Amino acid sequence: MSDSSNQQWGGRFSEGVDAFVARFTASIDFDRRLYRHDIEGSVAHARMLQKSGILSQDELSAIVGGLEGILEDIENDKIDWSIELEDIHMNIEARLTDRIGDAGKKLHTGRSRNDQVATDIRLWLREEIDQLGAELKRLQTGLVDLAEREADTIMPGFTHLQTAQPVTFGHHLMAWYEMLVRDSERLQDCRKRVNVSPLGAAALAGTTYPIDREFTAKSLGFDRPTRNSLDSVSDRDFAIEFCSVGALIMTHLSRMSEELVLWTSAQFDFIDLPDRFCTGSSIMPQKKNPDVPELVRGKTGRVNGHLISLLTLMKSQPLAYNKDNQEDKEPLFDTVDTLKDCLRAFADMIPHIESKKDSMEEAARRGFSTATDLADYLVRQGMPFRNAHEVVGKAVAYGLAEKKDLSEMSLEELAVFSDTIKEDVFDVLTLQGSVAARDHIGGTAPNQVRLAVKAARGEES
Amino acid sequence: MSDSSNQQWGGRFSEGVDAFVARFTASIDFDRRLYRHDIEGSVAHARMLQKSGILSQDELSAIVGGLEGILEDIENDKIDWSIELEDIHMNIEARLTDRIGDAGKKLHTGRSRNDQVATDIRLWLREEIDQLGAELKRLQTGLVDLAEREADTIMPGFTHLQTAQPVTFGHHLMAWYEMLVRDSERLQDCRKRVNVSPLGAAALAGTTYPIDREFTAKSLGFDRPTRNSLDSVSDRDFAIEFCSVGALIMTHLSRMSEELVLWTSAQFDFIDLPDRFCTGSSIMPQKKNPDVPELVRGKTGRVNGHLISLLTLMKSQPLAYNKDNQEDKEPLFDTVDTLKDCLRAFADMIPHIESKKDSMEEAARRGFSTATDLADYLVRQGMPFRNAHEVVGKAVAYGLAEKKDLSEMSLEELAVFSDTIKEDVFDVLTLQGSVAARDHIGGTAPNQVRLAVKAARGEES
Amino acid sequence: MSDSSNQQWGGRFSEGVDAFVARFTASIDFDRRLYRHDIEGSVAHARMLQKSGILSQDELSAIVGGLEGILEDIENDKIDWSIELEDIHMNIEARLTDRIGDAGKKLHTGRSRNDQVATDIRLWLREEIDQLGAELKRLQTGLVDLAEREADTIMPGFTHLQTAQPVTFGHHLMAWYEMLVRDSERLQDCRKRVNVSPLGAAALAGTTYPIDREFTAKSLGFDRPTRNSLDSVSDRDFAIEFCSVGALIMTHLSRMSEELVLWTSAQFDFIDLPDRFCTGSSIMPQKKNPDVPELVRGKTGRVNGHLISLLTLMKSQPLAYNKDNQEDKEPLFDTVDTLKDCLRAFADMIPHIESKKDSMEEAARRGFSTATDLADYLVRQGMPFRNAHEVVGKAVAYGLAEKKDLSEMSLEELAVFSDTIKEDVFDVLTLQGSVAARDHIGGTAPNQVRLAVKAARGEES
Amino acid sequence: MSDSSNQQWGGRFSEGVDAFVARFTASIDFDRRLYRHDIEGSVAHARMLQKSGILSQDELSAIVGGLEGILEDIENDKIDWSIELEDIHMNIEARLTDRIGDAGKKLHTGRSRNDQVATDIRLWLREEIDQLGAELKRLQTGLVDLAEREADTIMPGFTHLQTAQPVTFGHHLMAWYEMLVRDSERLQDCRKRVNVSPLGAAALAGTTYPIDREFTAKSLGFDRPTRNSLDSVSDRDFAIEFCSVGALIMTHLSRMSEELVLWTSAQFDFIDLPDRFCTGSSIMPQKKNPDVPELVRGKTGRVNGHLISLLTLMKSQPLAYNKDNQEDKEPLFDTVDTLKDCLRAFADMIPHIESKKDSMEEAARRGFSTATDLADYLVRQGMPFRNAHEVVGKAVAYGLAEKKDLSEMSLEELAVFSDTIKEDVFDVLTLQGSVAARDHIGGTAPNQVRLAVKAARGEES
Repeated sequence: MSDSSNQQWGGRFSEGVDAFVARFTASIDFDRRLYRHDIEGSVAHARMLQKSGILSQDELSAIVGGLEGILEDIENDKIDWSIELEDIHMNIEARLTDRIGDAGKKLHTGRSRNDQVATDIRLWLREEIDQLGAELKRLQTGLVDLAEREADTIMPGFTHLQTAQPVTFGHHLMAWYEMLVRDSERLQDCRKRVNVSPLGAAALAGTTYPIDREFTAKSLGFDRPTRNSLDSVSDRDFAIEFCSVGALIMTHLSRMSEELVLWTSAQFDFIDLPDRFCTGSSIMPQKKNPDVPELVRGKTGRVNGHLISLLTLMKSQPLAYNKDNQEDKEPLFDTVDTLKDCLRAFADMIPHIESKKDSMEEAARRGFSTATDLADYLVRQGMPFRNAHEVVGKAVAYGLAEKKDLSEMSLEELAVFSDTIKEDVFDVLTLQGSVAARDHIGGTAPNQVRLAVKAARGEES
Repeated sequence: MSDSSNQQWGGRFSEGVDAFVARFTASIDFDRRLYRHDIEGSVAHARMLQKSGILSQDELSAIVGGLEGILEDIENDKIDWSIELEDIHMNIEARLTDRIGDAGKKLHTGRSRNDQVATDIRLWLREEIDQLGAELKRLQTGLVDLAEREADTIMPGFTHLQTAQPVTFGHHLMAWYEMLVRDSERLQDCRKRVNVSPLGAAALAGTTYPIDREFTAKSLGFDRPTRNSLDSVSDRDFAIEFCSVGALIMTHLSRMSEELVLWTSAQFDFIDLPDRFCTGSSIMPQKKNPDVPELVRGKTGRVNGHLISLLTLMKSQPLAYNKDNQEDKEPLFDTVDTLKDCLRAFADMIPHIESKKDSMEEAARRGFSTATDLADYLVRQGMPFRNAHEVVGKAVAYGLAEKKDLSEMSLEELAVFSDTIKEDVFDVLTLQGSVAARDHIGGTAPNQVRLAVKAARGEES
Repeated sequence: MSDSSNQQWGGRFSEGVDAFVARFTASIDFDRRLYRHDIEGSVAHARMLQKSGILSQDELSAIVGGLEGILEDIENDKIDWSIELEDIHMNIEARLTDRIGDAGKKLHTGRSRNDQVATDIRLWLREEIDQLGAELKRLQTGLVDLAEREADTIMPGFTHLQTAQPVTFGHHLMAWYEMLVRDSERLQDCRKRVNVSPLGAAALAGTTYPIDREFTAKSLGFDRPTRNSLDSVSDRDFAIEFCSVGALIMTHLSRMSEELVLWTSAQFDFIDLPDRFCTGSSIMPQKKNPDVPELVRGKTGRVNGHLISLLTLMKSQPLAYNKDNQEDKEPLFDTVDTLKDCLRAFADMIPHIESKKDSMEEAARRGFSTATDLADYLVRQGMPFRNAHEVVGKAVAYGLAEKKDLSEMSLEELAVFSDTIKEDVFDVLTLQGSVAARDHIGGTAPNQVRLAVKAARGEES
Repeated sequence: MSDSSNQQWGGRFSEGVDAFVARFTASIDFDRRLYRHDIEGSVAHARMLQKSGILSQDELSAIVGGLEGILEDIENDKIDWSIELEDIHMNIEARLTDRIGDAGKKLHTGRSRNDQVATDIRLWLREEIDQLGAELKRLQTGLVDLAEREADTIMPGFTHLQTAQPVTFGHHLMAWYEMLVRDSERLQDCRKRVNVSPLGAAALAGTTYPIDREFTAKSLGFDRPTRNSLDSVSDRDFAIEFCSVGALIMTHLSRMSEELVLWTSAQFDFIDLPDRFCTGSSIMPQKKNPDVPELVRGKTGRVNGHLISLLTLMKSQPLAYNKDNQEDKEPLFDTVDTLKDCLRAFADMIPHIESKKDSMEEAARRGFSTATDLADYLVRQGMPFRNAHEVVGKAVAYGLAEKKDLSEMSLEELAVFSDTIKEDVFDVLTLQGSVAARDHIGGTAPNQVRLAVKAARGEES
């Protein structure tokens, strides 16, 4: 987009644009996806012009009818887009004038391509945000349902990828859910700043025509008109903010993906992904590869890259509009497409994860994951924590040597390390006892998982 | 931060940490700036432990007194930080135990360094956000005041850095103001997600002690406890979101800086910056360099870099806590420091910008900046815009040849291009007429600038 | 790319791939541009298999003939690419088998898609590097020719965008040339690491067939086979290194673009760009916008983004091949396309820059740009530099007040500031004298520009 | 760095620099680490000035003596750095003049801080590159030695983190080695572009003094003087290129780290890291955390961030020097420090990795990793690969049901799937047979690992 065109520009120019330059500077190849929003914006603008006495009722009818016809043609793939007409705005306007004659030429009164493109992208992005929000919610619902089913399933909780303490699988899934709650909030916060109307800012300074910016803003469902015309045509914050929200969504999906890849490995063997989300190998007959999470993980870089692309683009740009800004669209478009695909893939896949409960529990058992519970037990008997840590350390060393987990030792064996250990120690040494004991807000107890599921459903309703 | 320490770890370890490794993995060199928030969090935690019956009143008094003494020592620079004690948490805790004995060892009950550090950073960042918000507001106030003074000052408005249409300097300054309005909003949106309490998430799964997370959250001024312990210790979204807000602030400052550098060049000569914000040259006696905006512009890269650093850090990390996360602090700290310095520099400098009104107006006059106004005038006489554009193009070509701006031509000269041009054309050809005519929401008219200033002050009160 | 396929995978899988997943994971939409190199690699592989006794001569002939036919079909746009066949490799192989039957199935012996795709990209990128190198050279030649024409043209040299000292325009252009020299070197250094053959690494471990990797490497023009099969299929260094070379090229073009945009502004008015590289405005009849440099400047962000995308992609990936790596292609492809377009635009445009010599010289005259020369003159008379700086400072202050440049003052006026100033001062105060005096390697003297031009041509021959 | 100073600047300035601005714009806090190179450059410059007749022999002696004294003071920590003196250059120069009087003032003749700082950084970076190169080599040597010891150790080779084919641990380690070979090459390629002398470019245009740039270049060990003065003071390519080389080194270390973290997990259990490179937990007595690889992995983001920081910094900067460039140092310094620490940590740690051979081999056995070998065996008996794949798929399905790996089945069991299977099948089904069979350049056979080790040592000698 720019305020230029490949038409004649009066006597100012002595030669036409070079053919390569025309192709190099045109945006129609990618901005044509804005066609519906461009037409929507033009209809609202035309209605305002009629209301303000700039267009007659007949002119308005001709314009609206013409634009509707063009919309139909586009959706039926009957349009040959023209590089010479540079962008979606000029392509549509030229067709409109072909169809309805001089009235078409009046449509551009009181606006410029600078405010027009800003309006189009905002309309488009608002719609995409709403769709992404719905897909996020679908994924969250899948997680909550799965968490409920897995509220009692025990697995090792890791820190440093070393077995730390037993947790419930439902609790782990609700951690993923929490990440997405923040993503949803950020998406809505971003939407507020997308949903304002730059229409009427014209080239950069506003216009001398008696336009009604409140009217167009309202017609197009915007919260209000923007407050400064220079800012309106030069602002691309909303695209950057959207990409930064997207980068966090992808970061979260990459973390989930990493865990899915780990968990489907022979070494972890915690879950099964449905075959339809995996592929095999044409070479190695035994392979079943977790392609979907791997690919999603890889796509994180893509969105981080687009974010940097836009930040670099806007750095040090003087006001108001510069041709550089044409470069805002492709990163934004691809970010939206990537997010939609990745969220869809996860929303489809997550409900079909099958946990391998025995394998998970066995892993939790193996790593002395209840060592902290034993220390806490000793502290509750009055032993200072530092001493308790030492006692448990010795018990662990014994267990390593004897290949016995703490819960597999007899009371006699345990009592060697401290005579304050009594029969009730086994309540805390079992995995079930360990997770059940962490029964406070945010804790891993099955009870807390069920409460969290309930609360999540309340938020969703 | 990590769940490790350089103390003895019972019988599990056969040798101590290598000296280089101890230095390499320690964070005390940079995390000690969290000392105040670490102590604040510990006091709240201790009070909760007493309330929950885990500490006696005497133990609580000893702990609180001990921590206050340590705080005083730190602020009086009486502490030798120890690499062996790895981080701020262990440095403080070890000193506490030195001072008050066994009660100090009980402080860590029901928490871990994983939730402790997450609490500390959130407390610290919340405070910094509030200070940054105040500095942003101070800069905004300076802009609004300057915009009011410059509401009638005329300068060329640029697109593509080519003279486009005349605008008022006040209008341009209010465009800057609008950018900062969005920054303020984003900062507040981010603050909501910073201001939750991870305390009580313990190492990753919660704790078996009867803790009261609502109590500590409330004591520390948090909105609520976090909802999932795994997420609590692994979440670094708030740091990334903060840096993305910061990257947009810096992007805005870089755009203002670019314009300030252009405007102070001999070629533009639009403004003067006070000498105290500039430097001269030890070699070239005539130089006066706009160091402050240049340096601010350069610092944009810094914050973009930190954002990428944190996004890269978190990509693909499995839950819950990994040592990688120790790397979250330095980029975050430096982002805060950079923003504070740059906002301060701008808030100090902006009110003292002196506009060179003659030079600005002369520049607006030179570039046929009212060509659009002439075309609009012809359209209002009933001429189709395309024809009007052609007529004005010819007048501009004549002006280029004769070195006369449109407003400098006589009625006779203008009438050559169209006989619909009458005496009243000069109302629109003057720069004053041009800007005054753009008198709608967001337009550049002095009247609109004054309304915008008023509205801005209303928002600020 | 992956080692998977949508074909049957024996009894291992209980269901086919989900349709959305098939689309999501397919790469044929973008990797089909590798078709020529995929076929080239297959032909070399087939010849090796025959030479090693794995294929008969007849099978080889059938394969080579079949592949040539497919190549022709593709170039005549007679191929329907299939999403089900996932990628370019399977699309071509399936067609080959359709054409020639069982011999086609033998082509994949001793290789895998993992080494095949690595080979394809390296062949493709090597070719693109050579084309980019040629375009870089064309741009350099244009710069050198222009520099020669402008060896005597005087303009202000800037630091901090403040007039510093006079320089020659030719010297400035040769600074641009030097940037590109480094880019050329880096491109060649990168090419060395691109030009090795991974073919024969198979899936990850090599193969049990008696393959001859030296033979295929040599056939395909590679310098040598890679040295480790695991590394061969997991290495994407060359793509990252290429993008980092590209990011520097774009950084340089962005700097040139910034200057071109400044120089074509009304405020600088140093040069004219040909109309065919500019556009006008459909709204503002007087506009002539430097679209090409603006757009190139904007595209810098794009390549920086792709670099980050690839670095993020590869971070923390365990060996050997992961599906994530499919994401290596689009950023790499777009980086190549962007570089080619931008270099072409510059190589086409630069030779047609017209300098406005009077305007440039006038600007150099205005800013006291010879102040340093006067100070140097005084130092040569024996005055300590600090004193000389002071004397010149006073003369500049006088000049500012009287609106006279140093060279416009009379000897009497100058002598007021120091009686050591004599008639010969004017030799250094003239712009010509100033630039001529900087006559050492790298200095701005016209003489040095001509020597640099000559040296550059020597390097090019 | 800039061409400014906080000293008096003659009559041009009406007020001193604001105290906050002085602190904000000063670089002494970080650029003082260049002190040794600044002095080295000054000594070479002074010798050249004497040789060119600008300084007397006495003045030279005074300067060299003075600088040596200052060097000693700095190394004995006897210097109070001054913010008012802004940077390392002015801090040293002011001290020199204090010590030796007027001769000190003459040192700055024919140079400027713009070329001085460019010289200092290049000298410093060259030295750091050489140290990093040595550390890289030490790490490579450790890998090669370990690879030799582990040439016969069998482990599963992974693609998609699924067991693919057996490989030797030595082969895997040599894949790491290959990554570092490319890093070494890139470091040397970068060094060529670092090692040129900007000294004599002065502020931007060269100088009017009869300087000898070849002399200073040679004295300082540079390959040659730079060829263009404008480029010399504005070029920061070498810093960006260095950081991009650094980003790839860190990417490689992050991949090794990821594998080390996986391999030390209870789930993989492939290796042991020495206790002195790990830490335990103050809470969980059983923990042993791989802190070093985790932290190195996290530091990858840091260097990626610095690369973006520098690219953003240089984007769109007009020539020649701008204050923005002061921001080049901290990212560069921190990149060097990070690389040194991480390479040291790895070079220290790698030789002490202990493989758990039984566990590795057991894992290779479990995953049907020789399925490809069985298919290859059938193909060698004349069966088309597609059929062979099907046969093996069925055998794998049988194995999954019976919990038997292929090599654990009897000949009778295998023959059920194809009667072409004979006794010799066990040669290929054993892990040892499988790896030994991949005996070509780059293949995983122990024989090839030993050849690769030998070649690597040849390269190193």
